[in-house]
This record gives sequence, C-alpha cells and structure tokens, in this order.
Amino acid sequence: MIIENVLIVDPLDGEYVGSVEFEDVILDVKKSNKSTYDNILMPAFVDPHIHGIKGIDTMTASQEDFKKFKEFEALEGVWYFQPTTVTCPLTKLSEINLPSDLKLHIEGPFIASKRKGAHNEAYIQPPPRDVHELERYLPLSYIGMITVAPEYDTFMEFARSCEVKGIRISLGHSDATFEQVKSAFENGFKRITHFPNALSPLHHRELGVTGAGLLLDFTLEIIADGIHCSPDFVRLVYKIKGAQRIILVTDSISAAGLKDGSYMLGDLHVRVENGIAKLHDGTLAGSTLRFSQAIKNFVKFTDCSLKELAMVSSYNACKDLNLNGGRIKKGHPAKLILLDKDLNIKKVWNF
Amino acid sequence: MIIENVLIVDPLDGEYVGSVEFEDVILDVKKSNKSTYDNILMPAFVDPHIHGIKGIDTMTASQEDFKKFKEFEALEGVWYFQPTTVTCPLTKLSEINLPSDLKLHIEGPFIASKRKGAHNEAYIQPPPRDVHELERYLPLSYIGMITVAPEYDTFMEFARSCEVKGIRISLGHSDATFEQVKSAFENGFKRITHFPNALSPLHHRELGVTGAGLLLDFTLEIIADGIHCSPDFVRLVYKIKGAQRIILVTDSISAAGLKDGSYMLGDLHVRVENGIAKLHDGTLAGSTLRFSQAIKNFVKFTDCSLKELAMVSSYNACKDLNLNGGRIKKGHPAKLILLDKDLNIKKVWNF
Repeated sequence: MIIENVLIVDPLDGEYVGSVEFEDVILDVKKSNKSTYDNILMPAFVDPHIHGIKGIDTMTASQEDFKKFKEFEALEGVWYFQPTTVTCPLTKLSEINLPSDLKLHIEGPFIASKRKGAHNEAYIQPPPRDVHELERYLPLSYIGMITVAPEYDTFMEFARSCEVKGIRISLGHSDATFEQVKSAFENGFKRITHFPNALSPLHHRELGVTGAGLLLDFTLEIIADGIHCSPDFVRLVYKIKGAQRIILVTDSISAAGLKDGSYMLGDLHVRVENGIAKLHDGTLAGSTLRFSQAIKNFVKFTDCSLKELAMVSSYNACKDLNLNGGRIKKGHPAKLILLDKDLNIKKVWNF
Repeated sequence: MIIENVLIVDPLDGEYVGSVEFEDVILDVKKSNKSTYDNILMPAFVDPHIHGIKGIDTMTASQEDFKKFKEFEALEGVWYFQPTTVTCPLTKLSEINLPSDLKLHIEGPFIASKRKGAHNEAYIQPPPRDVHELERYLPLSYIGMITVAPEYDTFMEFARSCEVKGIRISLGHSDATFEQVKSAFENGFKRITHFPNALSPLHHRELGVTGAGLLLDFTLEIIADGIHCSPDFVRLVYKIKGAQRIILVTDSISAAGLKDGSYMLGDLHVRVENGIAKLHDGTLAGSTLRFSQAIKNFVKFTDCSLKELAMVSSYNACKDLNLNGGRIKKGHPAKLILLDKDLNIKKVWNF
C-alpha cells in the first residue's frame, strides 16, 4: 500500500509532504518536493482512560461488547485504549471480560474520599502494601495502570510493587499536599490522572496536586472537552508543560455517542444533558467526549502544531504505556490515520 | 571613583568580572580577564510597593519622616520607592507630606470588597470615570501608580485617563473573571499588584485574575517573604513567567525593622508575631519584609541567576515606572550597590 502526496505528521521528525509505503509495518517514507497536499497522515491515537462508549461499559461489557468497543474506537482513530474501571468492591474486578490484547486502567478504589468525584465512596479503600494482593481478583497481566492517591501510608510500597510488575502508577483523585506529591515524584511516579479534576487545588501557600503537576515534571492526562476544564485552562497547561507532558484522554462513559438521558457509571446513576454527564448532586461523571473531537478541541484551545498534536494524541501515551506505536517512520508499526485538513478522520489502517 | 575586580551584574549584558568608573553617571565599564572576584556590583533596587518601615507610615509620615524613610531604604539598597497608601477617605490623600522626588502608589479605595485583604471596607468605592476628579485631593503629579480592580464598570475610562497622565495602572485586590482581566490586558493594562494575594484564585473552569496573570503576558509584583506565597509558588511563577515578568516588592508596613507587637496600618490594628503582620481575623496585613532580604529569598526560592535578580529587583521596575536606572553601562546613572557573595549589602552609591 502506498499513500502519496499527504502531509506526514511525525511527533519527532515533524510535518512534511511525502509518501508512505506500508503493510503491517511502515516499509518506506519519502519526502517530496511538493508543498501542497489534500490530506494528513498521522499516527493512530491512544486513549489510556476510557470507561465506555455507545452503551458499552468496561464493568459490564461482554466479550462481544468488547469487540464492538474496539470497532467504535477504531472509528475514533484510536488503535489502543485502556478500558477503565470505576471504584467498586475488588471482587467485581474478577467479572470483567477483558480481551487478551487490552489492559485495564484501574481507577479506584485506592483513591481519596475527599476527591472521589463520581466514584462510590462506600468502596474506597487504601491500597494494599503489595499489588500481588490483587491477584485474588484478576491476573496482574490484565492491569496496565492504576490510579492511586499518593497520600495513603501504603502508597509507596504499593506503587513500587506495581512498578516491578510493569504496571503504571498514575496519581489521581487525590487531596495530597505538595510535599506528598513531590515525594511520589522523586520516587519516580510522574503521571497524573485527568489533571486537574479531582485533585487538591492550587493555593499560593499550599500548591496541592494541581500546583505540583504544574511545577514538577509530571505528565498530565487532559480531558479536552472544554467542560472538565475550560479552554483557557488547557491553554495554560500547554503553555506551562508543553506538548511533551500532556496525554489526551476522553474519560468517556457508556453515554458517549448516544443521546442525552439516564445512564449508569458503575452503580451510580448519571444524567446526561447537552452531552454533559453528572451525578444528581452536579458532580461531573466522566465525559461524552469522542477522541476524534478531543483532538480538534486541543488544537482549537492551544493553537498547537500538528507535530505537537501527534505527541499528545499518541506518541506520549505510547511511551508512557511502553507501546510500539506513535511514529511515522520506516520499521514502525503502520497504525495510521488519514484526516482531511479540518481533522476529520477519513480512513484508518491496521486496527 | 573606580571599583575594580568586581562581578558586574547587568540585567541585559549579564555577569562578568571587570571595573566600573563613575561619578553620578557611569563613565566607563571595563571587562577584565580575571574570573575571580570578592564582591558583586549591582544596579540599586526599586520598591514600587511599600507602606512603611521602622515606625514610619506613608499615611502619617512628616516631611522629616520621609527623609528617614529614604535613609532606611538606602540601607536596603533601594534608591527609589513608591510610598504606598491604604484604602482611606479620599480627603486623607491631601494630608500626605510627599517629598517632591517621590510619587505615590495609591492602593485602594478603587478595589473589590470581596478581595479587600487588609483594607478598610468602609472606604472602598468604584473609581471615578476620570482621574482628574482626584485633583481635588492631591496634584496628579504626586501619583505614580494606582491599584484598581478591573471589574468596575468605570475601570476602563478611569484607567485610560490615568494613562494619558502617565499614571501606571496595576490590577489588584480584584475578584474579576478571566474575561474581565483579559479585556483589561488587551487594552494595555498589563501589571498586577502583589500576585496572587487578594486576587480571584485559579479554578480550572474560571481562571480568575490568578490564572490570567499566569496565562497572559502580565508583569507581576511578588512579595518574596515566603509567607504571602510559599517558596514553591514563587518558583512556579518564575518557571511560568520568567524573570522578565516579575517585580519584587516588599509591601512592608511600619513594623518592618521593628520588634513584634501592635501597629497600625491606616486605621486598622495590626498584630505582628514572628514577623508576620495580621489583622485580628488572621488576614495578612502587609509584610515586615526588608528588600535586602527579599533578594536573598528570591534567589533561594528560584535558583535564578544574578542577571535575573537584577531584572526582578531593579530593571523591570525601572522600565515599568519609566525611571532612568537599572543598568550598569556607560552613560547610565550610577545608582549602584556593592554586595558580598552572600548578597549582603556592603556599600551603596548616589542615593
């Protein structure tokens, strides 16, 4: 397969017009002398934090549902995603019908009650000292990432035991102080879940998780729906951190891609109005954001380059999750998306 | 007068060992081949926001007190400062015994009640449409700067009338929204008083004055006492804004340089304990910070270079106030300070 005369966007090599020859793997990339093009070729996207889409929810999806989940994500340009759990009794984790080629993002129960967001407080608990205790409920190989509040006494032991097993730790749903977060950072835990939602806010005498995320060299998940944080806030994060330290996620729930109405997120009732998902008390409860929209929003909010867009939508997440992807370069997997100049997805390959 | 073999620190030309010949004006600056030195020569400091020091208060100082005020400031390395008023009935402004070579910083009464800090709410009022209305109380030539909350309907007209008269506007004590601050910024009002104290905080769905100060190209006053904002916060501001957009101020009150005890700030009672000045309700009420300490703190908090220190302690304020100073360069005024390597002031010239 050869695609000619497209704008090739690579997160490291930049943007240039050329042609790409590929099968499963990219066989050749050639720069052309032309400067005009009709379409854009980008590395396919990765969504490390997604609860569900179009009626499917990670917690209850059948094997058949997970197949559809992948198909729906392919339409969004997403070749890899982490189906994400909500805070639940740990026994519930054993009921998840995870396909063998995906890994979970476990969001809770090891989070802070004060910053629970749309998680059921009844099931919140401190992390065990060792991740092996979770093996009672599911194989550790099913787990890609765990969101944990670093203020628990057991955090550091738990996080280190995860590291040994190749499970990423993401700090989140946390009321930690700056010093607590700094300590986690200095011990190598440098990722934060849906920044700055459900995190202790920036105060000028106690920077909290929000201030730590901005000041220290953390990588931050951002939900670029313009609802979880304002476009200006996204621009501020982009200004401070640069595209290298941002990972776009949808945090979408089963209502994504469906009409407004009533839905479940775990065992909590969610009401979606004008695409905004909330608990009855007004707490935001995940999003209805589609990845194909998230990339358009991010460009609109920040005026970033397409090279930077390739970082925040794919390359950074690939590095973070140790995935082979995110590049348009000879020898790399040909997980590719063709977009028009308005960033509408026209075609995807190899997923 | 010739000073030889010192580290010359200029905010634009940088740091180098050499000699400086000067009278009132710098006659010659020579780079030497040496790399060792005992002392540091810096442009003398400017403090655009200081209520008082050692028992002297701008609101009540006699002509004799103002002489002492200048002498005390000289010991701090400060060659120019703006004696700063507190929120008061406007008639009080006519009682200030300002010397002819200084100009006032009028802090209030045109501020927001919700962000009054240690200002007496009873006297807070919207700004008039035209600064000429203040001529009833004092000559406009007495005024260097006015801190104003931009959310007042009359803000823009007032601010423009100040601009025409060469009076600087600084946004402060404000509960404005991001959009309101952005509008002021776009109209050329790009300075913020004692950031982020007494300003609407950063929220991720409404950035407030704090978020606007960080996101837009504002110049920010910073009280680097480690109390008004934490050292980490100062480091965050330095990281985001750079030294070019920071102006150190003390915001000190008459208790500065004196023992703990009871003092007045305008007509409010202030209690100073361990050097921290507060109203009875715990609100911070100015500082007891000395400029000679502020520069040490800023270096400690941020690890900035001496070149950058020259920016935040003098050059930026000179540019901001249209003062001829802040450089060590032939032809510039010789307002100079000699410091040892621990930044203790050893000698000052020409003020």
